[in-house]
Amino acid sequence: MSTSHPLDAALQLQRQPPSQPDTGAAAGLLEISQGHTSPAYWNMVGPFGGTTAATCLQAVLQHPALLGEPLSLTVNYAGALAEGGFEVQAQPVRTNRSTQHWTISIVQRDAEGQPVVTTTATAVTAARRETWSVSDTPIPEVPAPESLERMHPPKGVAWIERYEMRPVTGVIPHTWDGRGDNSLSQLWMRDDPPRPLDFPALAALSDIFFPRVWLRRASRVPAGTVSITTYFHVGQAELAATGTGFVLGQARAQEFRNGFFDQTAQLWNQAGRLLVSTHQIVYFKE
Amino acid sequence: MSTSHPLDAALQLQRQPPSQPDTGAAAGLLEISQGHTSPAYWNMVGPFGGTTAATCLQAVLQHPALLGEPLSLTVNYAGALAEGGFEVQAQPVRTNRSTQHWTISIVQRDAEGQPVVTTTATAVTAARRETWSVSDTPIPEVPAPESLERMHPPKGVAWIERYEMRPVTGVIPHTWDGRGDNSLSQLWMRDDPPRPLDFPALAALSDIFFPRVWLRRASRVPAGTVSITTYFHVGQAELAATGTGFVLGQARAQEFRNGFFDQTAQLWNQAGRLLVSTHQIVYFKE
Repeated sequence: MSTSHPLDAALQLQRQPPSQPDTGAAAGLLEISQGHTSPAYWNMVGPFGGTTAATCLQAVLQHPALLGEPLSLTVNYAGALAEGGFEVQAQPVRTNRSTQHWTISIVQRDAEGQPVVTTTATAVTAARRETWSVSDTPIPEVPAPESLERMHPPKGVAWIERYEMRPVTGVIPHTWDGRGDNSLSQLWMRDDPPRPLDFPALAALSDIFFPRVWLRRASRVPAGTVSITTYFHVGQAELAATGTGFVLGQARAQEFRNGFFDQTAQLWNQAGRLLVSTHQIVYFKE
Repeated sequence: MSTSHPLDAALQLQRQPPSQPDTGAAAGLLEISQGHTSPAYWNMVGPFGGTTAATCLQAVLQHPALLGEPLSLTVNYAGALAEGGFEVQAQPVRTNRSTQHWTISIVQRDAEGQPVVTTTATAVTAARRETWSVSDTPIPEVPAPESLERMHPPKGVAWIERYEMRPVTGVIPHTWDGRGDNSLSQLWMRDDPPRPLDFPALAALSDIFFPRVWLRRASRVPAGTVSITTYFHVGQAELAATGTGFVLGQARAQEFRNGFFDQTAQLWNQAGRLLVSTHQIVYFKE
C-alpha cells in the first residue's frame, strides 16, 4: 500500500501502547490509536461516512491479535466527527477457533476535554475456508464502465471527487419536482486516483450511494446514515484480483417511514463476483 | 405484558444498581441486569438466537434513560450461551436530540469465574416523527394464514414449538438430496401461545428462519447465525394494532461463499405494513 494515496493518508492510525481492558482476562487487548480527519474526504458537516467505516475496520486490521479477514462490519454514526484528531478503540472481545468478535469506537474530546463517542462499531473477522459456494445474486446486465460517461460531481464536496463514478441508472435528480417513482441506482465506481481494492476501500465504497429519498421523492431533504452493516463475501486474494478495476454498485430502498428509510445494496467486481452485500438505515427530514 | 407468557419469562431481567461507566461523563449510565436462559426457548447447543437478540433489546427498553423506540439492532453471536444465568450490560453511549446510541453485551462466567463475552450488540433508538412515507416493498401475494396448514415441527427443539408457523413456500426439505435450486422461504408466523406483538418479540421473529443453505443445497450441514441486523419500520402504536395477528416472513440468501452466507428478510403484518427489514450473516460447514 502506498501511503501517497489520499485514502491511505486518511486511514493512517498511530498505535498507542496496548492497555489492559476492563472486561476481563478472556477478552483481548483494547488497542487505542490516534487518527485525524482528512480534508480530502470531507463531506458537508463531517468526514464521508465511508471513510469513518473504513477507519473502524483499519483499527481492526492493524491490531496485532487479528484473526482472519473481515466478514461483517456494523458502524453506527452517533454524531459527526469534528475536524481534527480522534481516538479509535478496538478490542477483540472474543476469539474463537475461526471467528473473532470486535468492538470498536471512535472518541473525540469536547471543549471541556471530556470524551464524546462519535461512532460505535462491531466487526467479525473470520478464517475463510474452501466450501461449497454459489452466487444467487448475479451481476445485473449493464453497459461496461468504459462505455459510460463519468459523472461530474457538484463542486464543494471533497469526498465525491475521490471517486470515479460512472452511473448506469438512478442519478441524482436534475429537477427537484417531487416526481420520483423508484429508488434504484446502479453505478460503476472506483477510487480516484485508482488504488488496488482492499477491505477498508470496500467498506468505504459500500457507503457511496446518495440518499435514496432524494431519488424516490425527487426532493433534496437533509439525510444522513445512522447505521450501516456490510457483509464481505470475498478474501484478500479476490480483492487483489479486482485490483484497480471498477466495482458495480446497486442500491435501493425498501421502506420510507417516519423519518427513516433503509437501503439494501450490492457491490460486484467486473468479473461478476459479489464482493459485499450492505445495508443501512438513514435519517431524513420531513 | 403478562409475565405468564414464556417469552416474557425468558426476557425477565433483574436490574442491578447502575454503576458509573468508564467511557466518560458524556456517555449515559452503564446498567447491568441479570437474566437466565429459558428451557422454553432452548435450541440445540444454546438458546434460540432470536431470544438472545430480544434480550439485548429488552435491556435497552428497560433502561431508565431510554429515548424513543427501536430503530436498528445488531447482535453478534460470539459464542453460545451456556444454560444458566447471564449478565446483560447496556449503555447509552450517546444521546442526541432524537436518536440514542447503545452498546450492549451479554457476559457469562467460565469455570474459573472469569467473564466471557457471549454476545455483543449495538442499537439505535429514535423518536419517530410524522413525515412523508412510502412502502417500496409490497407484501407478496400469498394465501391467508387461516387457509394454510400449520407446520408440525420436529420434536426435541423447544423454541420451534414456541411459534406457530404456517409455511407458504420454502419449507425444510424432506429429502436431503442436494437438489435445491433457490433459497426463498415465506411463512406466516406468530408466538405460541399468541402474545401481542412488541419490539422484543419482533426482534426474535426476525431470526426465525432456518439456515438458507439447507434449502438452497438440500443438504443439512451445521450452520449458525454469526451476526444479525434488524431495522424497525414501525412504532409501538402499529405493533399494538398488529396485536396477536400473524406476521408474514420472507427470507432469501444472496451469496454462499467460503463457509458463510448472507440472508436478507422482511416481515409484514397482515395489513401489509413492512414491520422490519433484517439481514444476517451465517456460518455453515463444508
